[in-house]
This record gives sequence, C-alpha cells and structure tokens, in this order.
Amino acid sequence: MLFVPWALRDGDAYLRAVVERGFAAGIVLEGIHRTADPRRAVEEADGIYVGGGNSFRLLAAMQRHGLLDPIRRRVRGGMPYLGVSAGTNLACPSIRTTNDMPIVEPPQGLGALGLIAFQINPHYYSGPVQIEDDPGRWTAHCGETRDERISEFLEENAGPVLGLREGAILTLEEGRFKLAFEKARLIGPGSEVQEFVAPCDLELPFAE
Amino acid sequence: MLFVPWALRDGDAYLRAVVERGFAAGIVLEGIHRTADPRRAVEEADGIYVGGGNSFRLLAAMQRHGLLDPIRRRVRGGMPYLGVSAGTNLACPSIRTTNDMPIVEPPQGLGALGLIAFQINPHYYSGPVQIEDDPGRWTAHCGETRDERISEFLEENAGPVLGLREGAILTLEEGRFKLAFEKARLIGPGSEVQEFVAPCDLELPFAE
Repeated sequence: MLFVPWALRDGDAYLRAVVERGFAAGIVLEGIHRTADPRRAVEEADGIYVGGGNSFRLLAAMQRHGLLDPIRRRVRGGMPYLGVSAGTNLACPSIRTTNDMPIVEPPQGLGALGLIAFQINPHYYSGPVQIEDDPGRWTAHCGETRDERISEFLEENAGPVLGLREGAILTLEEGRFKLAFEKARLIGPGSEVQEFVAPCDLELPFAE
Repeated sequence: MLFVPWALRDGDAYLRAVVERGFAAGIVLEGIHRTADPRRAVEEADGIYVGGGNSFRLLAAMQRHGLLDPIRRRVRGGMPYLGVSAGTNLACPSIRTTNDMPIVEPPQGLGALGLIAFQINPHYYSGPVQIEDDPGRWTAHCGETRDERISEFLEENAGPVLGLREGAILTLEEGRFKLAFEKARLIGPGSEVQEFVAPCDLELPFAE
C-alpha cells in the first residue's frame, strides 16, 4: 500500500511511527515521499493510505505533484482508499470542513478528491470545551464551539456535514456506507441532526 | 466609528448586540453593511472596529469590496483600528494563524491588512483540552493542541506568533506595543516562548 505522510513535515518519522505502533496491520507500506515518481507510484499501488496532520499542507503537496486526478481515477476504478484525519478531509469535495490552521495556501484552492459527495468533519465533538492553562485549573474555552463552526459552514455551503467522533470508522464499499466503529452525527443545512451509533448503515449521498 | 460585522452573517444582529452589551462604550457605531458606499465610509470614518466571527468570510468580504488597501492607508495615516478575534487576524500579515474553519475561499488568497509585521493567534491557550460529549463526562480531546498547530505554522512560515489569551488586549500606539490586559505568549521560530503579563511593554517587530 502506498502511504502518504505529506500532512506532516517528517515523512520518515511518520511512516516509522505507523509501523511501530501496528497501524499498518502487517501490510507493507511504501512511503510516497521516498518514491522517485509519485504519479507512477499511484498508478501501480494496490491501495493508498493518506495520513493525518495539516490538511492544507497535505492538499498543497497533492496539487504540487498533480496527484488529485490520478488518485480519484484509481479509486473510482476500485483501488482501496484509507484516510485518517487530514486524509479523511482529502476524500471530501473540499477541505472546507477541516479543523486545521491554514498554514499554507494550496495554490489551486481548497477543492479535494471528492470521493464522496458530502463533507466530513473529523475529530468531531459537541458540547462545551475546557482548557487547562494552569495545572489542575480547568476553565471554559470561549472560542467558537465545533457546532458553531459547522453552522457557519452551512451558512455558506450546502450540507450535510458528517461529524465523525473520535475513533469513528466510516466505510464505503460497493456503494454502501457503514459506520463500523464509534459514533457520528449528520448535520443538515438547517442544522438539524441525525445520530448514528456503530455498527449501522448510513443513507448518504454517494460519490459525485 | 465604522463597525465591520462581516465575519458574521447577520450584520444587524451583531451591531445590535455590540451596542446592547455596552461594547460600543458610548461611541456611535455605523455598520458598514448598511452603507451605500463602503469605500467612501472607510475614507470618512473616524475609526474602524472590525468584529469577530469567521476570518475567511471576513477577508473574502474585504476583498470583494476592495477595502484592504484603503483601510491600510487610513490606519497608517493615523486612523484608529480596533480588531476583535477575526478582526485581530485581519490586522496581521495574513490570516494563516486563525482558528477558524475555511468555510469560504477568499479569492485573492489569505494575505490581510499587515498593520503589524507578525502573526497573532487569538483565543490562544496552552495545555490539554477536554470535551463534555455526555453531560458530566469530560474526556480528553485527541485532535492537535493549539501549540501543535502553531508549531506547524512555524514549520512553514517565519515567526514569531503572538498568542493572545482569552480577554487579552494588545495596543499599538506611537510605535509602542503594550499588553493592557491579561496574558500573552510569544512563540518563536524554534518554538521557544516568552511570556507576558499585563500591564507591560512588548518588544515586537513594528508595522511592515
């Protein structure tokens, strides 16, 4: 499987950590950052595994190497795609529902792979947030909540947004979405919500 | 004073809330969203007050109305500028250190007013975060911490970044920066930090 570590700066360290922590599940991973011809590596891969980090940096690298079209074509042709965090954002129509800081500007804008026809917000949570600025002293965080941010997205864009809670796994095989682990919340254009608890099927718009 | 509510969708509601909550401090505010000619309003204003919300939406509106140059020119000529949250991001060289979701794409990119020569991260906090997904049950949030996000920014951009903690007020008058309220942390290119507690002067790079 081809591993894409570009959301982080140090690809070697990331690949090593994935293998050492057992996240490769025994599958041999080839780091795309080590290949002489990333485009050819995509064409020849048995599958692609796009890791987490900063979604803007990941998308900028994908655009720089001209890989969005080749990956989209191969996945539509049946190649398995696995995305984690930023790699999940990349599977969406755009990265407009990322939680990441816009540390770089993807030169071709925020459009992404569009392997699915709706947006995902990874690391989703609802409810209030506390921060521990001094040890032992928890105080309320006053910035926008995640739900407020998603509401702002829905003011400017069509929905829905699927919020994947920490650890949740969403699969798409043979046209069927399943929530395989943990929980998710679907947030519609009027901010109406629908809750899912694994294991369950999800009726969602299919690939664009 | 000219009030800019464009980081939120409902300008009338925002302006009303600012006045009702006493944030206008008795000063008459004119909402730029109500003016027939926003550019002329900038030229004639005694001061400008840019409110919070989503920084991407705010910057996109500024670009659409062609206001970045006029505001920059007037502020450099002595007009007071007051920025809150997204309005603080707008005063920086770019909005690349915003916490906001990229719900829209500013057509001319992420460059902002550049009234100061360094980046600010508003609503800054350090330390861990916990979320209350179920009432009474607080769990650790596993996404990147704020410090990790700022480190990622410093991997891709020159520093420093000034993290303004909740409620902090930074002033710039006659070439001197002062922290007037609460605390701030300056994070340098190697992630070295310097802490400030109000009231104090700050030695910081001046306007570009």
